[in-house]
Amino acid sequence: MIVVFTGGTGGTKLVQGLQQVVAAEELTVIVNTGDDLEWWGLHVSPDVDSVLYGLGGLLSKDRGWGVEGDSFRCLGRMKQLGQLSWFSLGDLDLATHLTRTAMMRAGKSLSEATGELAAKFGIRARVLPMSDDRVSTLLDTAKGTLTFQEYFVRERHQVEVQAVRFEGAEKARPAPGVIESIESAEAIVFAPSNPVTSIGPILAVPGVREALRRTKATIAAVSPIVGGAAVSGPAGVLMTIMGWPSTIAGVATAYEDFLDVLVVDRVDEAEAEKMSSVRVLRTNTIMRSVDDKRELAAFVLEACAAKQIGGD
Amino acid sequence: MIVVFTGGTGGTKLVQGLQQVVAAEELTVIVNTGDDLEWWGLHVSPDVDSVLYGLGGLLSKDRGWGVEGDSFRCLGRMKQLGQLSWFSLGDLDLATHLTRTAMMRAGKSLSEATGELAAKFGIRARVLPMSDDRVSTLLDTAKGTLTFQEYFVRERHQVEVQAVRFEGAEKARPAPGVIESIESAEAIVFAPSNPVTSIGPILAVPGVREALRRTKATIAAVSPIVGGAAVSGPAGVLMTIMGWPSTIAGVATAYEDFLDVLVVDRVDEAEAEKMSSVRVLRTNTIMRSVDDKRELAAFVLEACAAKQIGGD
Repeated sequence: MIVVFTGGTGGTKLVQGLQQVVAAEELTVIVNTGDDLEWWGLHVSPDVDSVLYGLGGLLSKDRGWGVEGDSFRCLGRMKQLGQLSWFSLGDLDLATHLTRTAMMRAGKSLSEATGELAAKFGIRARVLPMSDDRVSTLLDTAKGTLTFQEYFVRERHQVEVQAVRFEGAEKARPAPGVIESIESAEAIVFAPSNPVTSIGPILAVPGVREALRRTKATIAAVSPIVGGAAVSGPAGVLMTIMGWPSTIAGVATAYEDFLDVLVVDRVDEAEAEKMSSVRVLRTNTIMRSVDDKRELAAFVLEACAAKQIGGD
Repeated sequence: MIVVFTGGTGGTKLVQGLQQVVAAEELTVIVNTGDDLEWWGLHVSPDVDSVLYGLGGLLSKDRGWGVEGDSFRCLGRMKQLGQLSWFSLGDLDLATHLTRTAMMRAGKSLSEATGELAAKFGIRARVLPMSDDRVSTLLDTAKGTLTFQEYFVRERHQVEVQAVRFEGAEKARPAPGVIESIESAEAIVFAPSNPVTSIGPILAVPGVREALRRTKATIAAVSPIVGGAAVSGPAGVLMTIMGWPSTIAGVATAYEDFLDVLVVDRVDEAEAEKMSSVRVLRTNTIMRSVDDKRELAAFVLEACAAKQIGGD
């Protein structure tokens, strides 16, 4: 079993790559839910949706989020009606949130709803939200305390952040299957997601980090930092706030207690040579095409297999 | 003040006509909510929406319900996701239901939410749902007990009905303003709506019928029955179940304890001449154009004024 930790748009690309090289039944995706929000009364789970749309072949190629070919007519009317409109929900996308919310109001957990949605989208890989309990990524900023989506979407991450915290994490339980899949995995891959706000919430769920330290699986991470900056989004800035350098070394620091292999981009060769705490492998990590995704996924899995067989 | 009782699509046409001949501040619309339903977790109030869209200039001319130029992309996806799809909610229409539901979850009553929505749609007439308490029109049929929308939309009213009842009506209170507007009206108009399932629920709310009997206003009704059959929908069949003939005389019977003037179509001249219990006036009642709506509204108001001045 291959287990991948992901959140955000960069992570989804690697999940799509893994889908090309791993049998669906062998793939488990553990997804950040710290970005989840109640929007127009609906439970929206942006990172789970990105994974569902990515694996279901529905993800917008242009936007990297939401549904390919979606329209935004309801959103436009909501704006006219004076409702919040800074978070873009498409008309097709809305169906996902309406369905999930109906399932959850009927008493299903987020992971049950996610499993049912995945099945409806024809996905055979296992998609697990990190927890069925509510964990909210909150950022203390110059504009007060913001949820992740307020910071990332509404403020376009152009506001100074003082601290990041995961409200509810200390009482959250890992969703069913999360710990078991970590324990029984052959390889565990950290997608090139923001280590602070995409992976951080997952690691903040009690028991997850311990399971990662304990597992016999080889654990690899793909650096979301390339050439000293995030490929997209505010990972660099947020890593600095955590006291980590916004470099590949900072990524290694974020995962230092369990990481076996760090996969970095070729442009970071000089930086890679300075690192000794973890095995560092270089390849092309920028995923523009379907082939890029597949090749990176295959590279990461090979690195895990080599590590497993050859030792280090 | 002119007060109009309405429900359904035919009723909305006369409301639109009244909007042309009565100053907005002088018009109060009391609307059936017996058809309201929880759909995809949202509070949908079909007859209130028809009035809001009709008065707000948004009503689909072709369909007679929903928003002009709406699309149904979310609905199509909901169907693919295995959700109920027999009730057609458009993408623009959805914004109304999302907004209303958010208002009501925040503690507002249906009439408060309706007032706010009306203001957002630029409507200055007063739109009052009959009650803020839940009243459900239920039909005992050959297929079991159905809600009105299950009967009307899902089954296309092609199922035998044994009885009609208004669940919750006996405990429902008229919405704020309903009784007061009846008491202080100059004229009260019953739109050509189904007397059983569109007007019946309003009359079933305790206090409404008594206020109609008590008011000094002239009360006129436009017959939804033309030439012995309903202009649209199942009014004729449902009137028969109530023990009323499906004729203009049946309409007079439905309202016999308070009606002053019955406005019928010219085609019902012979039938009209047989009636003595109520003053019957004939005109063209089929509303195809904007002019038809205005002319019928003006005719009804003139009839009320003549009755008020001339006595009978």
